[in-house]
Amino acid sequence: MKFVVQRDPLLKSVQDVMKAISSRTAIPILTGMKIEAKQNGIVLTGSDSDISIESHIQAEADGIVNVEQIEEGSIVLQARYFSDIVRKLPEQSIEIESDEQHNVTIRSGKAEFNLNGQDAEEYPQLPKLNTDDSLELPTDLLKSVIKQTVFAVSTMETRPILTGVHLKLEDGKLNFTATDSHRLASREIPVEETNVDFSSVVIPGKSLNELSKILVDNDETVDIRVTQNQILFRTKNLYFLSRLLDGNYPETSRLIPDQSKTSIHLNTRDLLHTIDRASLLAREDRNNVVKLSTNGNGMLEITSNSPEIGHVSEEITADSIEGEDLKISFSSKYMMDALKAIDSDEVKIEFTGAMRPFILRPANGEPIIQLILPVRTY
Amino acid sequence: MKFVVQRDPLLKSVQDVMKAISSRTAIPILTGMKIEAKQNGIVLTGSDSDISIESHIQAEADGIVNVEQIEEGSIVLQARYFSDIVRKLPEQSIEIESDEQHNVTIRSGKAEFNLNGQDAEEYPQLPKLNTDDSLELPTDLLKSVIKQTVFAVSTMETRPILTGVHLKLEDGKLNFTATDSHRLASREIPVEETNVDFSSVVIPGKSLNELSKILVDNDETVDIRVTQNQILFRTKNLYFLSRLLDGNYPETSRLIPDQSKTSIHLNTRDLLHTIDRASLLAREDRNNVVKLSTNGNGMLEITSNSPEIGHVSEEITADSIEGEDLKISFSSKYMMDALKAIDSDEVKIEFTGAMRPFILRPANGEPIIQLILPVRTY
Repeated sequence: MKFVVQRDPLLKSVQDVMKAISSRTAIPILTGMKIEAKQNGIVLTGSDSDISIESHIQAEADGIVNVEQIEEGSIVLQARYFSDIVRKLPEQSIEIESDEQHNVTIRSGKAEFNLNGQDAEEYPQLPKLNTDDSLELPTDLLKSVIKQTVFAVSTMETRPILTGVHLKLEDGKLNFTATDSHRLASREIPVEETNVDFSSVVIPGKSLNELSKILVDNDETVDIRVTQNQILFRTKNLYFLSRLLDGNYPETSRLIPDQSKTSIHLNTRDLLHTIDRASLLAREDRNNVVKLSTNGNGMLEITSNSPEIGHVSEEITADSIEGEDLKISFSSKYMMDALKAIDSDEVKIEFTGAMRPFILRPANGEPIIQLILPVRTY
Repeated sequence: MKFVVQRDPLLKSVQDVMKAISSRTAIPILTGMKIEAKQNGIVLTGSDSDISIESHIQAEADGIVNVEQIEEGSIVLQARYFSDIVRKLPEQSIEIESDEQHNVTIRSGKAEFNLNGQDAEEYPQLPKLNTDDSLELPTDLLKSVIKQTVFAVSTMETRPILTGVHLKLEDGKLNFTATDSHRLASREIPVEETNVDFSSVVIPGKSLNELSKILVDNDETVDIRVTQNQILFRTKNLYFLSRLLDGNYPETSRLIPDQSKTSIHLNTRDLLHTIDRASLLAREDRNNVVKLSTNGNGMLEITSNSPEIGHVSEEITADSIEGEDLKISFSSKYMMDALKAIDSDEVKIEFTGAMRPFILRPANGEPIIQLILPVRTY
């Protein structure tokens, strides 16, 4: 194998693929990165068995030559060393060559690295997805949806299914839902012309977080394919494959109240900052509890109390408060997470009493739902 | 006590004083910050017994009013809470008030914090420095000298004196030296009109690191005063007091060879980057060893080897190589630290054989000396 590659595209690809590589793995060769040279370019592969990432560097793209002097072949290199070396090489032009004994030489400027490679034949084959059914989403939309839901997955392994985001396709709508059983985040997006036959899968939250980091904000689309136990996200130069979680995701639609007793409209950022300040004196308490109460004159009062330290209160003017007066306590962390995901200047919050879950929705009508269970203190 | 203060100068002062406050302290009140309101402004104080910092906010400075409506008094607040609160307050204008029961109210916009304060009488008195003898240094020069020497202090408590930087005043020159017994960094600066009677003190490296973070790069001067066991660095609005280390600093001047067998001139940054690359394959070895050898044609070769991983070599063109040919091994970390401190485009390195300490000096003649002990491998 031999090729000459430009440093910038190589570095971007290496960094993307590194997201799938763990230094703690039961399969030693998975601490390595597979490098394949083909006539049309280079393919880098990394995997931790849960996530596998393939990144393609086209030999020529948009009239720019990225890879030259290609002699086909493949090799596996220790990923951590390879990535550090690429990052620090002195010149844009990098020559990588391997011999029959899996010795790899990397040359750039006057620097020459000789590394012990491993036979690429020993690298596990990535699972093949036997489906042509695919769904297309704009990249930036997919990144938004992940950001608006994935934070709400459970981090506890007691109910493994809740560590994933539930993807449900129904009536031309794709719904993303995450819950840790104390709060829930959900967003619906319309999809067109689907010929996909899956109706419900659960994707590990970790996979979606890594995917979101790798996807570049641009106007390309992501092609999504699902089989029984794998999901593939594909862009022009990237294959991102994740295992799916086994098991049935709980039915969550009935958690969402369909009526409300108190309805509040207000500025998202003002509320976020007020909760953030109140949370400063709430953190000694393991629940991070702050209290919200209506005071009858169009204002809300946010308070928190930590006997050792002190007390904080702040009034905030709502655009409107309709319905019954209310006193309710909740986790400031959950509230801040939800407000950050609202993605609209104005938020509408609907309460059905101090002991019942309440709902945040963006006032701009986007189908985002953030549900939070209150804490009993009043 | 009562006053109204502007958020930006308060935040800067609080962040400076926080550098002296540790949450792990044997004296509970030292987790607090003392706030004193005087007619001419506010004084904030923090201390961890080793370092004490006082920051002054002038009521009025350069025609700008920072503090108003002052009613004199003092209080101690939990530093961590106070600093988080100041950082997140909504408005520029902040009112702070305390009552007889040490209850403190902080108001900004519609936010109100009520905190349990402590009696300022219980806060330890900072040591007084009974000396008028002082030495003045430009702030930016003091920051440079710290940066060029402090990294070489020992982090081992086996010889506590080596965890400090040695300050020596002799013949109108102030010398800063640090060594961990494997390498040494030293810089000399001329001082004028000193009426200071100290000749040698050792300042904890940690104190100088914190001081360097707080000092703002400007053209003001720092006033330095020394007593038997304390050193004070004073700027217009800052008192930075550190204890000194007890004990005799070893005599280091005889370590520096006065002749050389091989003398090399080259570009500082080129060598730094080459060593950095070579170190990538040296880190498995606990000494991080790289090798340097002259190859007889005006080039140096830098190599490193890690049997498990591979081998790296890079040639680098020297501006000049004079004297005997040389093969020498050393810690890449020490070499990189020294090169970063050289502060000159060109560096001159003088060797007196593969087993003897070698010296780096900036080619621009600045009196900086970086000494490194080689590692025996050849």
